[in-house]
Amino acid sequence: MRIDIITVLPELLRSPFEASIMKRAIDKGLVEVHFHNLRDYTTNKQKSVDDYAYGGGAGMVMNIQPIDDCISHLKSERTYDEIIYMSPDGETLNQKMANTMSMYENIIILCGHYKGVDQRVRDHFITKEISIGDYVLSGGELGALVLSDALIRLIPGVLSDETSALTDSFQDGLLSGPIYTRPAEYKGWKVPDVLLSGHSGKIDQWREDMAYEHTKNRRPDLLEE
Amino acid sequence: MRIDIITVLPELLRSPFEASIMKRAIDKGLVEVHFHNLRDYTTNKQKSVDDYAYGGGAGMVMNIQPIDDCISHLKSERTYDEIIYMSPDGETLNQKMANTMSMYENIIILCGHYKGVDQRVRDHFITKEISIGDYVLSGGELGALVLSDALIRLIPGVLSDETSALTDSFQDGLLSGPIYTRPAEYKGWKVPDVLLSGHSGKIDQWREDMAYEHTKNRRPDLLEE
Repeated sequence: MRIDIITVLPELLRSPFEASIMKRAIDKGLVEVHFHNLRDYTTNKQKSVDDYAYGGGAGMVMNIQPIDDCISHLKSERTYDEIIYMSPDGETLNQKMANTMSMYENIIILCGHYKGVDQRVRDHFITKEISIGDYVLSGGELGALVLSDALIRLIPGVLSDETSALTDSFQDGLLSGPIYTRPAEYKGWKVPDVLLSGHSGKIDQWREDMAYEHTKNRRPDLLEE
Repeated sequence: MRIDIITVLPELLRSPFEASIMKRAIDKGLVEVHFHNLRDYTTNKQKSVDDYAYGGGAGMVMNIQPIDDCISHLKSERTYDEIIYMSPDGETLNQKMANTMSMYENIIILCGHYKGVDQRVRDHFITKEISIGDYVLSGGELGALVLSDALIRLIPGVLSDETSALTDSFQDGLLSGPIYTRPAEYKGWKVPDVLLSGHSGKIDQWREDMAYEHTKNRRPDLLEE
């Protein structure tokens, strides 16, 4: 998979791609991530990438020209499965979407900043708008990081043990149940006996029951689906 | 506000706090962010912070001891409004929660990694479990970044123009409508006439109508609330 991220703040994106799973995936050659600084594409002398909103009001709006030039440049080099705009009014990301998108070959992620981008960018260049949740962030960069991580970890070969992703919350429509590790007792707090029993049938049943109970208590909406 | 983030990957968190709004808030002294590396709190010789799950299965589980010691150390120094664990089965973050939490003085955010933390950590130390959405990430670090950004930008004085946050999506129960900036025409695509009219009453009405239409089309659930 190749991910092209268009942003006014490439430096913000750096460290998460240099650590943990995303770094490992890049090092293994399973994913390529490229940052594109919008300021490199602006044609005005001030190198500005934003301007006041027509009609007035607080907050700056990102100009169409540098975004058009950057996307057009990338599209001239390869075909993209989706050109994504991160925005709180986009389609809300969920695990099913992540599963589908993890099979894509090339995607562009455009990060809005300030009040957002000129609507004509969304009308004419964007093929998919994604929100990571019902809250507002300073820009699309953290959304791009979240989306990238959610996709990259699902690419076969990225996680050392593939069953690890398959047993995650949401993959079977249930939240994960409780997990424990050593010591068996800590300050008087004990690990449930069944997990120490060595009886794998009982352990599996207990885990299934706990995942179901946990989901029923916390997210009954998931059981209705 | 003071945010203490407990993690096995402090280096992952670095760049987002060194850019944009979060950096500005820190520079202005409006927020303090401290990273705590769990490995500095482990008492075993291998400096390990995780172990196999009781009962078997893929993925490592984070040990209780270093987390206990780190949280206890922090709690001995000040009082915390919440001790938060980022987890996909937590309460889903939304703007209303962000508004409330932006008024907190001190919070701890514990980032799970691998399969998650020993359940006894959640039972005995955590006061609030938060999810940023219905998808799985490699760890709680990106969730901690998202939560931090969502809260920090709401602290008075952080955004240069406070009305900018008040007109965001969700703050009035509606998604933001379309926004435009110069040029008025680009490759034949025009800005709506009303925005160039200079008639502020008409502009406000158009914006209100567009925000309502946009919300009705994309997120009718927000209108029902």
